[in-house]
Amino acid sequence: MIPQTGLLLTDLYQLTMLHGYHSRGMDDTAVFEFFVRDLPPERNFFVAAGLQQALEFLHEAHFSDEELTWLRESGRFPADFVDHLAQWRFTGEVHAMPEGTAFFPNEPILRVTAPIQQAQLVESRLINLLHFQSLIASKAVRCTLAAPDKLLVDFGMRRAHGAEAGLLAARASYIAGFAGSATVLAAQRFGIPAFGTMAHSYIEAHADETGAFESFARAQPDNVTLLIDTYDTEAGAHKVVELARRLKAEGIAIRAVRLDSGDLDAHAQRVRTILDEGGLPDVRIFSSGNLDEYRLQELLAQGAPIGGFGVGTLMDTSADVPYLDCAYKLTEYAGQGRRKRSESKATWPGRKQVYRHYDTDGRMAGDTVTLYDAPAEGDPLLEHVMSGGRRIDPGESLDTIRERLNSQLERLPEPLRRLEPAGSPEAPAYPVAIGPALRQLAEQVDTWLEQPAPAPQQRTG
Amino acid sequence: MIPQTGLLLTDLYQLTMLHGYHSRGMDDTAVFEFFVRDLPPERNFFVAAGLQQALEFLHEAHFSDEELTWLRESGRFPADFVDHLAQWRFTGEVHAMPEGTAFFPNEPILRVTAPIQQAQLVESRLINLLHFQSLIASKAVRCTLAAPDKLLVDFGMRRAHGAEAGLLAARASYIAGFAGSATVLAAQRFGIPAFGTMAHSYIEAHADETGAFESFARAQPDNVTLLIDTYDTEAGAHKVVELARRLKAEGIAIRAVRLDSGDLDAHAQRVRTILDEGGLPDVRIFSSGNLDEYRLQELLAQGAPIGGFGVGTLMDTSADVPYLDCAYKLTEYAGQGRRKRSESKATWPGRKQVYRHYDTDGRMAGDTVTLYDAPAEGDPLLEHVMSGGRRIDPGESLDTIRERLNSQLERLPEPLRRLEPAGSPEAPAYPVAIGPALRQLAEQVDTWLEQPAPAPQQRTG
Repeated sequence: MIPQTGLLLTDLYQLTMLHGYHSRGMDDTAVFEFFVRDLPPERNFFVAAGLQQALEFLHEAHFSDEELTWLRESGRFPADFVDHLAQWRFTGEVHAMPEGTAFFPNEPILRVTAPIQQAQLVESRLINLLHFQSLIASKAVRCTLAAPDKLLVDFGMRRAHGAEAGLLAARASYIAGFAGSATVLAAQRFGIPAFGTMAHSYIEAHADETGAFESFARAQPDNVTLLIDTYDTEAGAHKVVELARRLKAEGIAIRAVRLDSGDLDAHAQRVRTILDEGGLPDVRIFSSGNLDEYRLQELLAQGAPIGGFGVGTLMDTSADVPYLDCAYKLTEYAGQGRRKRSESKATWPGRKQVYRHYDTDGRMAGDTVTLYDAPAEGDPLLEHVMSGGRRIDPGESLDTIRERLNSQLERLPEPLRRLEPAGSPEAPAYPVAIGPALRQLAEQVDTWLEQPAPAPQQRTG
Repeated sequence: MIPQTGLLLTDLYQLTMLHGYHSRGMDDTAVFEFFVRDLPPERNFFVAAGLQQALEFLHEAHFSDEELTWLRESGRFPADFVDHLAQWRFTGEVHAMPEGTAFFPNEPILRVTAPIQQAQLVESRLINLLHFQSLIASKAVRCTLAAPDKLLVDFGMRRAHGAEAGLLAARASYIAGFAGSATVLAAQRFGIPAFGTMAHSYIEAHADETGAFESFARAQPDNVTLLIDTYDTEAGAHKVVELARRLKAEGIAIRAVRLDSGDLDAHAQRVRTILDEGGLPDVRIFSSGNLDEYRLQELLAQGAPIGGFGVGTLMDTSADVPYLDCAYKLTEYAGQGRRKRSESKATWPGRKQVYRHYDTDGRMAGDTVTLYDAPAEGDPLLEHVMSGGRRIDPGESLDTIRERLNSQLERLPEPLRRLEPAGSPEAPAYPVAIGPALRQLAEQVDTWLEQPAPAPQQRTG
């Protein structure tokens, strides 16, 4: 539904501002940074995701002929400005944390350095892309932490917010350690393993439940997972036992059963007994239905004999934290640091880097946010990923990104790995320091701002 | 990013089920209905939206050559089944509530009648489309009810969940009575009025705030709204007064100022005084920043002198209710009513209609859900909108849909118009009755289900 390169997927004010800059001949180098302001109590850290799509957008973005025609006909802008937009391309520099990096509030995960008419216009869609995947990866990783040894599958596309959300939630949750997704398009586009069984409608369409199980098993003999809760879960399990005996003679094995309703723990216990007593100890139980990290933790604490989980709506909408308070802010223009000082929304100026240091056990011990060229302890997290509007490296595989996050999870301080909020004396929050060079620049900017204003300039255009 | 007609934007189980149906030669007429199970306490009614996109999807859906090639190469399905998919088109019937209709739990808002291989496959994307816009329209209408006389503008694209969500949230909120959206693409695609001013970066990029205001006003003299909270809101208002005097001589008028941070009521009061004392009683105050229907109600109760609001993230993510518990369920196959009886998720069988009756004042008095051909009091809400896979009428304009919802809001019982949950003796919830014919069919289905199962059938394919 959305052309990937379209630049009309933006806020109108980007165009009115561009018109203002253009009228005045302003196009000096600007630096914008994307960051999240606050950590909600339901998260102990964030996971950076979406850079691949953000860089594709920057590389490909331009106004299509159809868009230019529409802009001309809208009468909102003078023709010479629309002609100017026809030439628009992104030719700037991008520094970013690689996808799969754990990050914290006030840490830029992406920095754009480009003429202001470029760096400004990309704001809306860049936020849209980085926000959503980081949101979902930050939610999904909590499921991975809650159920590290279980098969987790993204089931959420149908109630994700639109097509792109469904597709990219599959990607973000795969980065976070999910085994795969039910969304077929995610397999085609990203090579993410696809999982799927049957819906209740398949059972209901057949004259009887056993007949439905049997027809499904014969059609897909290599991957038989049967949904057994359409009418009565335990009765369904008994039918599976009976069917398995008959199918065994033909070399068809039932691999798993799925539970989707009721008390999942109680049903799983009873179904496990029925399967075991029926000679099917290898048939696994897979569960779905209103699951999230809290429910997974609870089910595992109860000892529910469930081998895998389909996690859907609550993850794909990040239902407990459906958005992050993120921003893409100007931090430098024409060589001068810039900041806003709006109440509760003041920003740090300048081109920044995030340095992460580790304790002697290799655990993450703290981050420092400071100017990119200031000295600081630790490893820098932002890398130069785009130069002159072109990617510096060809991009990373999803498995590389998964592996990065996985190794970071091992180095994460223990309190941050829990679902409960860190921030108490026993479970301290992660320390993020602001470096002295950054504080100094903020003071310099404030002093500069309090200079008497120069005489108003006349427009040049 | 998403091709609109792509059929791989689906759950894998749709394909495995189709394979099962195909193997067995099952393709009798199926009836599926889309409905929402529960009304969360934060909503008193829902608003149907997304039908236009759902019908476009049904009309255009097919497997592209690229998709078919990928399916073949995936090795998941036999070649003859992929050849069968190449022929797939939707040729069925659709009955639906028109967009902009208020609806309640257990009321189908869309019914698909088609061969099961068609009606089944469209499930995932149909839910994805109907769920999201109904979710957002149901949220946005609460803003309209909280601030009926104010200019409301959708500002949420950047933190909406992906591109399609940003675009369709603009459409859904416009249906719900918003004046327009900041999202330019919504203007191009749907003709929704576009609104926009400037960001803080525009102010910061200039050497001084007044200079930024002035350059903007000169570039866009017909629509000057100035953002005044970048450094100090009241100081910004004084600069506007000073600038307005100078610009007046040139025939440029400042139309509004925007506040985006801090205590919006207190700032608006002080800014109003500054503007009034500065001879600018006609300059309106527009506000944004973390707004939703509760905040709007609060600001209006405080008497904040604000004429318009930009409502963003909290609406475009429906942050208090980020998903609806909706489903698309088989209710009939091969002429026999069907239902699932899973715990807490049992469904009503059969082809249904929703009848709405009114009291003597013309207010909505109650709905009855029953079989489509059973007698019931009131007006039927589902209309025949697609026949043989083609739309019956050419589609409705957004203004027609807005008008429908607006006139329904006038007929809504008073307790449902409030933000507080209905459901108390003083503020009763809306009555939705299940008709006797529907109860009877459910009993018949249960009896039918309890018949001894016929002997297992062999596959036909």
